[in-house]
Amino acid sequence: MRGNTLDPFADRYAQRTHGMTASEIRALFAVVSRPEVVSLAGGMPAVTALPLDSVGAMIGELVSRLGAQALQYGSGQGDPLLREQILQVMALEGIHDVSADEVVVTVGSQQGLDLLARIFLDPGDVVLAESPSYVGALGTFQAAQAQVVHIPMDAAGLIPDALATALSELAARGRRAKFLYTVPNFHNPAGVTLSEERREQVLALAEAYDLLVIEDNPYGLLGFENEPLPALRARSAERVIYLGSFSKTFAPGLRVGWVCAPHAVRDKLVLASEAQVLCPPALSQLVVREYLSSQPWFEQVKVFREVYRERRDATLDALSALMPPDVRWTRPAGGFYVWVTLPEGLDAKAMQPRAVHARVAYVPGIGFYADGQGVRHLRLSYCFPDPDRIREGVRRLSGVIEKELELRATFLGARTRGGQSRGPGDSPGADLP
Amino acid sequence: MRGNTLDPFADRYAQRTHGMTASEIRALFAVVSRPEVVSLAGGMPAVTALPLDSVGAMIGELVSRLGAQALQYGSGQGDPLLREQILQVMALEGIHDVSADEVVVTVGSQQGLDLLARIFLDPGDVVLAESPSYVGALGTFQAAQAQVVHIPMDAAGLIPDALATALSELAARGRRAKFLYTVPNFHNPAGVTLSEERREQVLALAEAYDLLVIEDNPYGLLGFENEPLPALRARSAERVIYLGSFSKTFAPGLRVGWVCAPHAVRDKLVLASEAQVLCPPALSQLVVREYLSSQPWFEQVKVFREVYRERRDATLDALSALMPPDVRWTRPAGGFYVWVTLPEGLDAKAMQPRAVHARVAYVPGIGFYADGQGVRHLRLSYCFPDPDRIREGVRRLSGVIEKELELRATFLGARTRGGQSRGPGDSPGADLP
Repeated sequence: MRGNTLDPFADRYAQRTHGMTASEIRALFAVVSRPEVVSLAGGMPAVTALPLDSVGAMIGELVSRLGAQALQYGSGQGDPLLREQILQVMALEGIHDVSADEVVVTVGSQQGLDLLARIFLDPGDVVLAESPSYVGALGTFQAAQAQVVHIPMDAAGLIPDALATALSELAARGRRAKFLYTVPNFHNPAGVTLSEERREQVLALAEAYDLLVIEDNPYGLLGFENEPLPALRARSAERVIYLGSFSKTFAPGLRVGWVCAPHAVRDKLVLASEAQVLCPPALSQLVVREYLSSQPWFEQVKVFREVYRERRDATLDALSALMPPDVRWTRPAGGFYVWVTLPEGLDAKAMQPRAVHARVAYVPGIGFYADGQGVRHLRLSYCFPDPDRIREGVRRLSGVIEKELELRATFLGARTRGGQSRGPGDSPGADLP
Repeated sequence: MRGNTLDPFADRYAQRTHGMTASEIRALFAVVSRPEVVSLAGGMPAVTALPLDSVGAMIGELVSRLGAQALQYGSGQGDPLLREQILQVMALEGIHDVSADEVVVTVGSQQGLDLLARIFLDPGDVVLAESPSYVGALGTFQAAQAQVVHIPMDAAGLIPDALATALSELAARGRRAKFLYTVPNFHNPAGVTLSEERREQVLALAEAYDLLVIEDNPYGLLGFENEPLPALRARSAERVIYLGSFSKTFAPGLRVGWVCAPHAVRDKLVLASEAQVLCPPALSQLVVREYLSSQPWFEQVKVFREVYRERRDATLDALSALMPPDVRWTRPAGGFYVWVTLPEGLDAKAMQPRAVHARVAYVPGIGFYADGQGVRHLRLSYCFPDPDRIREGVRRLSGVIEKELELRATFLGARTRGGQSRGPGDSPGADLP
């Protein structure tokens, strides 16, 4: 029953089901959970930095006191008090002109993304997304049978000129993008942040081209250096739908995220969410509510920042000390990820088995593109391992890359004698370092 | 921004979004939560029958001990230990030939339904469903733009002859149903149970017509009279996909349900669920796991049975004592619902404002049909109010119906003098009492 040809249901699936494939991250799951492997692959937050005893006590007391609500069905839109508190969280990134009525609580912001795909995307629709993009967003767009057009980034984030080019080319073909999907802060996987100036430029283009922007911001409060830049949503209530999450500021195991959207869209989102899950988990929502109101949650965010800053530093220091000269990487000012570009001729996906053999894991770059780019790229996550493990992981990875370069030198020597050609898919990919 | 014509996003929505409407149940939500209204509308379980203090203590201790797991991302398929425990729950209804690998944990069984719709249904596909059917399933099929063909029921559940007719008519038109959706035990909303003999007949038809059956069984363990009949899935591993839920045996606020499906389908479900929510909430799953392993959960199911049996009895007794002679209703042997058929000429939806004015709420029957049937029907839920409230609610409802009958008599008298006609949509609907 396992092979496709033996699947007795093969002739029953919907069109959209035939395109479903496991993501690069999921394919790694079994491998990276082996304890001897240093995993720089997954994006798991450092939840052990939470005071688990006091969180446990808080939750126990909550269920004793409010169990009739915490264990019951709730509103499809989400708990009203939690939606009020979410306004205060968004205010930290400059979003002030919102009412709780415009907030929909979701089962993690992934569900928010999926709901937006569901209400906006017909098969064949065009979505603009950074190059590279969050793999979970690409999966959702793929499930909706949309066509993703990637917009290059550099160290200052999405490149507005490239966005303008894509928009005018679409317009010339009589097409319109349903929306631009962007992660402006501490991008997953690229690690870069959209600059202040470019935020204005992106929104000016949105205005000029009647473009809807989906701003996905799970990491915004996890900056190491400066106060967060005002969100895109803080600058435009009309053109921006905002996705937030408690997965990185509190805990992903609760699956509590949200969408902030204009009323008309909010209505559709609630109906779509009710069809999907009836309502988000009441227990999770009340746990977040209680945590925000009774615990020093923002002090804990500062603890997380320090944890991740130390890990980011360990990553960058180890990369600088250990990587061969032609390897380049981004320098994140927050969040979880460093994006690495290998020297020309190397293939991060092909290298993966050797890396796992050397007991280090990463995510190959191709998973973050809808169009086969990213061969030379890989994502390192520094959020979960401690600094010593990170250094050891980077050391192992450097060794693997060095061996690949030796192989390449041998191979290129042989090839040069026979005439060198550039392999398919070996594009430099964007303007990221 | 509220009206459709003023919706600035009106030209951006996907095709499927235009058909989205609020369900009859959701439309009632604001009304029925007013304390002076006796709500026989919602299907909220009696969670206050749980020992909230000990559940709270259990959860608090769980998070202190296993917080690093309970607050973290988990597997898209669901916690492996919980999936093992689910096998034991299914065994109570005769399902023994399953492995944990065939179980996918979902955000309530609603997500399971939605995932099945997502992987199987293209726009225009035919789904067979009982007449009436669970409103949440109809919403999901509608969101998938499927066409629902209703199969009549009587006091012994789905009528196999009617199923055979529908199947052969489809075959004659060269069409095939993607699946039959059925709630065999203590049907929502009809309150009836598929008899032993008919279970075999339905599966024989499934075999003859190569029909896939989706068995939705949230109430199976909540029978008042006999041991549960073996599930359809207990009789056929090949043709039945099974949906289970902890919402009625434990607590809906956790949103933990599951799908049991053959491997090939299981793979697709996991991929679709990852695109929707990444993974189900770890906290909720670990709470269920701990509850099943450390608490007398099956004794608690017996407590729930007694609570609901008492409420069922109060409902049936009050209906017998108070309803006008031409009103009929089903006699559930378990679960949450009684299905009421009003005398000819009455319209449960039109009557609703008068009922709410008389401070009693129910769900009009039309919400449980995809095709406009159900005008004379309504669903009463006895799961949530206590017996005194139930009796008072039925008393109020009887008064409303009596007044409707008086109006009808006046109106019919007038009409008979002018020539009587039968109104549109005023079909008797199925063979339910």
